[in-house]
Amino acid sequence: MKSFASDNYAGVLPELMDALHTANQEHARSYGADDITDRTTQLFRDIFGTDVDVHFVFNGTGANVLSMGVATHSYNSVLCAETSHMYWDESTAPETFTGCRFIPTTINKDGKLTQETINERLIRKGDIHFAQPKVVSVTQTTEYATTYTLEELKAIGELTKSKDLYYHMDGARFFNAVAALDCSIKEMSTDVGLDLLSLGGTKAGMMFGEAVIVFNPELKKHMAYKHKQSMQLASKTRFIAAQFEALLSNDLWKKHATHANSMATLLEKSIKDIQGVDITKPVCANGVFAKHPESWNEQMWEQYPYYVWDEHTNEVRLMCSWDTTEEEVKGFTELMRKLSS
Amino acid sequence: MKSFASDNYAGVLPELMDALHTANQEHARSYGADDITDRTTQLFRDIFGTDVDVHFVFNGTGANVLSMGVATHSYNSVLCAETSHMYWDESTAPETFTGCRFIPTTINKDGKLTQETINERLIRKGDIHFAQPKVVSVTQTTEYATTYTLEELKAIGELTKSKDLYYHMDGARFFNAVAALDCSIKEMSTDVGLDLLSLGGTKAGMMFGEAVIVFNPELKKHMAYKHKQSMQLASKTRFIAAQFEALLSNDLWKKHATHANSMATLLEKSIKDIQGVDITKPVCANGVFAKHPESWNEQMWEQYPYYVWDEHTNEVRLMCSWDTTEEEVKGFTELMRKLSS
Amino acid sequence: MKSFASDNYAGVLPELMDALHTANQEHARSYGADDITDRTTQLFRDIFGTDVDVHFVFNGTGANVLSMGVATHSYNSVLCAETSHMYWDESTAPETFTGCRFIPTTINKDGKLTQETINERLIRKGDIHFAQPKVVSVTQTTEYATTYTLEELKAIGELTKSKDLYYHMDGARFFNAVAALDCSIKEMSTDVGLDLLSLGGTKAGMMFGEAVIVFNPELKKHMAYKHKQSMQLASKTRFIAAQFEALLSNDLWKKHATHANSMATLLEKSIKDIQGVDITKPVCANGVFAKHPESWNEQMWEQYPYYVWDEHTNEVRLMCSWDTTEEEVKGFTELMRKLSS
Amino acid sequence: MKSFASDNYAGVLPELMDALHTANQEHARSYGADDITDRTTQLFRDIFGTDVDVHFVFNGTGANVLSMGVATHSYNSVLCAETSHMYWDESTAPETFTGCRFIPTTINKDGKLTQETINERLIRKGDIHFAQPKVVSVTQTTEYATTYTLEELKAIGELTKSKDLYYHMDGARFFNAVAALDCSIKEMSTDVGLDLLSLGGTKAGMMFGEAVIVFNPELKKHMAYKHKQSMQLASKTRFIAAQFEALLSNDLWKKHATHANSMATLLEKSIKDIQGVDITKPVCANGVFAKHPESWNEQMWEQYPYYVWDEHTNEVRLMCSWDTTEEEVKGFTELMRKLSS
Repeated sequence: MKSFASDNYAGVLPELMDALHTANQEHARSYGADDITDRTTQLFRDIFGTDVDVHFVFNGTGANVLSMGVATHSYNSVLCAETSHMYWDESTAPETFTGCRFIPTTINKDGKLTQETINERLIRKGDIHFAQPKVVSVTQTTEYATTYTLEELKAIGELTKSKDLYYHMDGARFFNAVAALDCSIKEMSTDVGLDLLSLGGTKAGMMFGEAVIVFNPELKKHMAYKHKQSMQLASKTRFIAAQFEALLSNDLWKKHATHANSMATLLEKSIKDIQGVDITKPVCANGVFAKHPESWNEQMWEQYPYYVWDEHTNEVRLMCSWDTTEEEVKGFTELMRKLSS
Repeated sequence: MKSFASDNYAGVLPELMDALHTANQEHARSYGADDITDRTTQLFRDIFGTDVDVHFVFNGTGANVLSMGVATHSYNSVLCAETSHMYWDESTAPETFTGCRFIPTTINKDGKLTQETINERLIRKGDIHFAQPKVVSVTQTTEYATTYTLEELKAIGELTKSKDLYYHMDGARFFNAVAALDCSIKEMSTDVGLDLLSLGGTKAGMMFGEAVIVFNPELKKHMAYKHKQSMQLASKTRFIAAQFEALLSNDLWKKHATHANSMATLLEKSIKDIQGVDITKPVCANGVFAKHPESWNEQMWEQYPYYVWDEHTNEVRLMCSWDTTEEEVKGFTELMRKLSS
Repeated sequence: MKSFASDNYAGVLPELMDALHTANQEHARSYGADDITDRTTQLFRDIFGTDVDVHFVFNGTGANVLSMGVATHSYNSVLCAETSHMYWDESTAPETFTGCRFIPTTINKDGKLTQETINERLIRKGDIHFAQPKVVSVTQTTEYATTYTLEELKAIGELTKSKDLYYHMDGARFFNAVAALDCSIKEMSTDVGLDLLSLGGTKAGMMFGEAVIVFNPELKKHMAYKHKQSMQLASKTRFIAAQFEALLSNDLWKKHATHANSMATLLEKSIKDIQGVDITKPVCANGVFAKHPESWNEQMWEQYPYYVWDEHTNEVRLMCSWDTTEEEVKGFTELMRKLSS
Repeated sequence: MKSFASDNYAGVLPELMDALHTANQEHARSYGADDITDRTTQLFRDIFGTDVDVHFVFNGTGANVLSMGVATHSYNSVLCAETSHMYWDESTAPETFTGCRFIPTTINKDGKLTQETINERLIRKGDIHFAQPKVVSVTQTTEYATTYTLEELKAIGELTKSKDLYYHMDGARFFNAVAALDCSIKEMSTDVGLDLLSLGGTKAGMMFGEAVIVFNPELKKHMAYKHKQSMQLASKTRFIAAQFEALLSNDLWKKHATHANSMATLLEKSIKDIQGVDITKPVCANGVFAKHPESWNEQMWEQYPYYVWDEHTNEVRLMCSWDTTEEEVKGFTELMRKLSS
């Protein structure tokens, strides 16, 4: 089965399977005290261009919740996009683990937070009756598979700095965004002023594993304790580190993210003129949002599963992965065209 | 490097690497809705001989905390051995996620809870000022690498049933214990009356992954929600399931657990007569506890890392793994003998 | 100083001071095991016309949070009005104590939830990634000092029953609402299908103390444990019970609530024709919402403090209390009229 | 009914009833922004001889839990006496609100922690797998109604300072202890190095209300937020403050605490020679611990309720209150003597 449902339906990059084999030698110290983890941490520091701390975790919810846990007191609130994964798709893990309130914040038509919509939420500072905002969390790429520009990211970074807030990026699809913006990893993270980054590995082709990258020195001192406490510390951490090491070496991440993005571009181009199809969001990275008649779904799903984003309008989300092929895009297009006629 | 430090220093069983490769085909539905997970769950039901629910999680702390979370209200307490991993080695994850109190309960000289020591803690039932006990958690094999007999486990099961408590087993080394008792998996779980089992995969030779097995129907209804909420649900769950499927097929678990256990037996036999060495606990499974002069440690560690269990007496813990070889045991013994002379 | 800021600026009803004196005799069993508490609980059962459980607590936040704690699992969400006190004015106490998400739900122009706006939030039932709604909380009187009619309350009760949700009322100003609707306590609680009621005492003229009334038998079994655990159990509970006993006897609550309501009606009538004044919400109970020029505030505040509800429009909230006098209303009106001219 | 069960069975000091009446004038700003609260805070600063922050709360559990909440991160542990109220009698409020572990720490025969027993628990510093100790909490008077000497308190203060721990005193019976030691309030708090004090009002004769006193400037900045979040902020705070103001004025606390203490001394003296009676703990403040035949209990309880501390030995706890009379002590003694003969 191949699908356009989610990039987490795809398997593991062959290069990462090789890295896992290579890492599977002899004994290694557990809980991240091994050589591969050391080496990979150094690689992260080189790439991010600054002395980041790196904490390898299991999954995206873990990365986000750990990030929020270290950045807040339990009387704080977190501002996140009203569409964000953290608000809609991580059960109550954020509240249960941090005690904080998560505030759904207005997005613009491209799915992005702005200085304006964030500012609207920055009220009643110092009022003890009101959950005090402490973190702004942006998602890059957004839930609409759009990308914040570097300028937009910097603007939010300036706001958070001036307002004594921490700046977090949920980068479940960080690599797709960097590839889409054709910039460096450093430019889209360190240089925009991030304090914390949830860096996605799984959707980029790893078997499991994400990383929390800590830029702000103030946040580093509690991280190791919170990492363990949040049930996100792997005893055989070397097998997460080894995958990241391979992904970060020789721009392997870029090769695969660029491919996934280009498949989305191809998909958009292929279907946009089909009668009944309406592309609903700008295609920036590896996802295409489109409306088409609901009656098509059943037949499409037999060959190409995908998710309906908005049931009222049959807006659907079509995600491309590292392993999406031109052939699949072509097959999807032909089937759609057949249903349209 | 090879060590006697912990079975989680060891890598991944070659058979499981093969299983991971086989699982890495095409797309699969995420979050456990895939075919391999279905198939493996059925396999668990066959082996446990009852209609268990199976929830694949990332690590042992996650398995324990999820188990406690589903079995308690936040005003409850959990009785666990005063030496238990859950009490000493999982930070405050148990309290933070469940809100409960964890009560260190007296063990006997072999590291085991008994009906008597549990009963001592069952006081003030119905007193709202007192955290109400709701779960008894045993660790099999124990922290002393000893094993409860089936009769001992059944006795505790009868007690918990009669006192309206849930019965949980932390089975981080479950397979070693089953191999040591030379019984079936069903006999050491379903048949002793467990409500919940944290089944260890990582120390048995998996890359990552454990499972929470739910026997009690009452506990099943909340599990899926708690599973997600506890940040322990893998998007590519198939890669945990595939490892368990391989481990449970053709008694692969038994082969490797038996080997690790036999290496511990060999180690005990090899070193027990060395002057200065004192075996301190009965050797039942894959660990040996022994005292020897502290002055030996440094030289031993250069070749064979291990942990000091009790710094006051230099009691050390020597763990054997699926990949411990006779040669290593021999090398360790020779080095010790040299230091002794 | 007398003010229109909040009914919690007012002191204690003289009749309740007398009741406190009467209760201050000899020794009484602590933590609610005393005779006055017993007697008052029985009185509650008579008045609510059903076998409610009554838990005396310290304050409104405690009453709400305890109610939510007993009605939810930590993976649940609570639907509350987007203007509700629980969402805006109780810090993160709700999240920290329950682990749940609190969902701001759309209100109509009179500040009320409706079947329609609640239904919009009842999505993704059974989806483990989504915080599952379990409670609907209405505030009566609302934050706009308006009142749900009995029919509106029943409609929500029918919805919650049909959707397997619990129905909670934040009744910080419950007595004002009953007086305004000119119905019985039973008609506005038991008969509309409430599962839980936070019954306000402080704003009704008590020195301290609220009560959580539990109608649903299913919720009763955990309440006593949760009561203690939530730090809301008074050792000298008799002094809360005694105040409620006096308040519920001889319709004392009604006398004072009716007076406060009538002062608000008088205030509205007195100021509504003053040039520059615009009454912005229907006046139903003991609060008046009005807009007037911001420039008036400073001089008004010197004599009569009040809160600005909306800084953008200078909409202000004028609360009347049990001790508001006609003279004060007259003085307020005259001052306003002077500023207007 | 009069009893020796607990000092919280007693009612309210007449002087405090007067203070409540005096405070019940006109309107006052809510949530502690009133004049009486200001004035009383200043009085506390004078008496403690330093610039403490004062947070008025409802009950002892609230005071303790708020103190722990502000002094810890959720990955910390708290060392408290193995007999402490916080460990045995506050349900799981401490864990649920803070996420921390509470470690029962060995006491000496007089019910006191010592540098030695605290030190035993200060292991594995910096080990992320181990809940990191951050607070030592002593109870003064202790659960055995004994008192730490000033030297003993200072010794623990020096230890906590040297080990980067916070020093908390659960002073539910703080005034009894100061009276017993015949020192000043400042000498038993500020001067021994406390960071936080839970100061008991209820058992000293208040209707309700305790105070958290914050000595450490570092802890002050989060207190107001935590105060509200912990559901312990009274809207009509003036009625707690007014009671404390009266209690602290003209050494009113001392008069009543000294009386309660002297009644315990008299009780001990009166019963110690009765055949079958064995005084089991040093009598230092307002409690007497004694063993007598279990068969006496029923008849004693008809007139003078008290609690059995240890059911195995019928060790009982006899608490004297501000309103215990010589007559009652005499009556109790006579009854006992009658049963003895």
